[in-house]
Amino acid sequence: MERGHLIEPERILRLEADAVVLLDQRLLPGGVVEVRCRTAAEVAEAIRAMVVRGAPAIGIAAAYGLALAAARGEDLGAAERVLREARPTAVNLGWALDRMRPEPTAERARAIHAAEVERCRRMAAHTASLLAAGTRALTHCNAGGLATGGYGSAVGALVAAWEAGLLERVYVDETRPLLQGARLTAWELESAGVPHTVIVDSAAASLMAAGRIDCVLTGADRIAANGDTANKIGTYALAVLASHHELPLYVVAPSSTVDLSTPDGAAIPIEERSPLEVSERFPALNPAFDVTPAALVSAIVTEHGAHRAPYAAALAGAVAA
Amino acid sequence: MERGHLIEPERILRLEADAVVLLDQRLLPGGVVEVRCRTAAEVAEAIRAMVVRGAPAIGIAAAYGLALAAARGEDLGAAERVLREARPTAVNLGWALDRMRPEPTAERARAIHAAEVERCRRMAAHTASLLAAGTRALTHCNAGGLATGGYGSAVGALVAAWEAGLLERVYVDETRPLLQGARLTAWELESAGVPHTVIVDSAAASLMAAGRIDCVLTGADRIAANGDTANKIGTYALAVLASHHELPLYVVAPSSTVDLSTPDGAAIPIEERSPLEVSERFPALNPAFDVTPAALVSAIVTEHGAHRAPYAAALAGAVAA
Repeated sequence: MERGHLIEPERILRLEADAVVLLDQRLLPGGVVEVRCRTAAEVAEAIRAMVVRGAPAIGIAAAYGLALAAARGEDLGAAERVLREARPTAVNLGWALDRMRPEPTAERARAIHAAEVERCRRMAAHTASLLAAGTRALTHCNAGGLATGGYGSAVGALVAAWEAGLLERVYVDETRPLLQGARLTAWELESAGVPHTVIVDSAAASLMAAGRIDCVLTGADRIAANGDTANKIGTYALAVLASHHELPLYVVAPSSTVDLSTPDGAAIPIEERSPLEVSERFPALNPAFDVTPAALVSAIVTEHGAHRAPYAAALAGAVAA
Repeated sequence: MERGHLIEPERILRLEADAVVLLDQRLLPGGVVEVRCRTAAEVAEAIRAMVVRGAPAIGIAAAYGLALAAARGEDLGAAERVLREARPTAVNLGWALDRMRPEPTAERARAIHAAEVERCRRMAAHTASLLAAGTRALTHCNAGGLATGGYGSAVGALVAAWEAGLLERVYVDETRPLLQGARLTAWELESAGVPHTVIVDSAAASLMAAGRIDCVLTGADRIAANGDTANKIGTYALAVLASHHELPLYVVAPSSTVDLSTPDGAAIPIEERSPLEVSERFPALNPAFDVTPAALVSAIVTEHGAHRAPYAAALAGAVAA
């Protein structure tokens, strides 16, 4: 990548001769540690444990896992199954494995990785057309290079907007329970030199009411055929709040995140993670994602453009392109 | 108190001959530690540091602090000033100090404490009239006995509703950054045997959309003359979300929280606390409260009844009663 302040794709995840190597996103930014996965099952476990997270990145990790399994002579049917079932909500896992099926080679997996990063660059250019000069954006979770294997979707677009002189500041939801915003997005924005301010998730509403936020940008884990969008828990809350304050919500995600076989949000499986991530002491509920109805999404930006409602035809076109 | 499962008022805070003794709410539920404040300035510092928090409780703490200052022969003007300025948003600090002025004795301070607990009992009875059988309520922060010096406002009402057979479950917002929900409210509900589930603050919206929440109950830090209500950051977000999902939001707070000299929410000073409470690593913004417009409040429950909009006359009556 030409921009040295962004994380190199191969630092985020890569395939070596005997392992898939993942930058452990659970420890960032305090610890920079790589995890070496030596089997497809170990890659699947790393995805489950969120060593690597972000819909495009876990798709790439699964592709590398299958290539590793092929190189090792593992049972490819079993390897594909364990990878596909690692996490339920992001459609990119299945998408990447489907693309690996004809020829589960390292070359093919690396091409998937490179294509995802290239999609991000194109999304950034399309997103810029939506932003006015002086934009103060809010983002949730981490839709950065760490989530996409390089460059980033929503965060990549924000960095590009900063470099184009369009951006004033990014407010970063800390994103409980795992703090992907406070740890990962803030770190990426700091590295890129973009002014940023971390807030607790529940402070977004009062900043909107005070006129301090112009728009909300997020990534996506799965976009249904009608435009309903699953993303990190709290995204739906932001969508309702943005609508109440008449602010646009833009979803920035590659076409690999669009699932035409899912008709609408009600059909998207929502992962429930361990309640211990929320409370080690009291009963807790820990849905990892929520669904934002298409009606609350102002635009969906894929590598093919900034699409407006009704989304069905545009999304079908983006997937077919 | 007749109900052994609730925390005794004097365990939460009390005046001894040479100290105001505060249960350290920063360490609960893991650590049960008392802090002894030997001067009014030490009480003020404990309020600032949130050893004791919750609008009615800090009012009581200030009353005890002034009584301690009088007993010690401190300069009462200086003592009153340092206590009054300890935190800006809750009006109860000034309210309690005003009531202490004629006679800053231990007896008077203890009467203020007892009266606040009695107000909570009466609010609980009035709140019950708003709840249907089988209610699944959401609450934010801690409006429990810890916040009011005993019994609790919103949480006291929920415990009473549980005992009256009206309540099915309480969803408890963890309430970042200081986790008063996940630490204090969950602990109080557990002690009272009320079914409870902790969620991250940003999960409330999707539970509402799924039809799993029937109403929202919160306390308040200051209620303006027109009904605009300052409460823990995130309350305004819940108010917008509740309105979007056509769910009622009830504010449960004693008349000591009503400030007729504040015409509306725009005039309520909002405390900004240290950004380090949000992030020790990146720039952060940490408003401790937000303001919910009266139009989003379905009812305000004081010890005098459940008041409906327009609030001005009812609140003036509650304060005068």
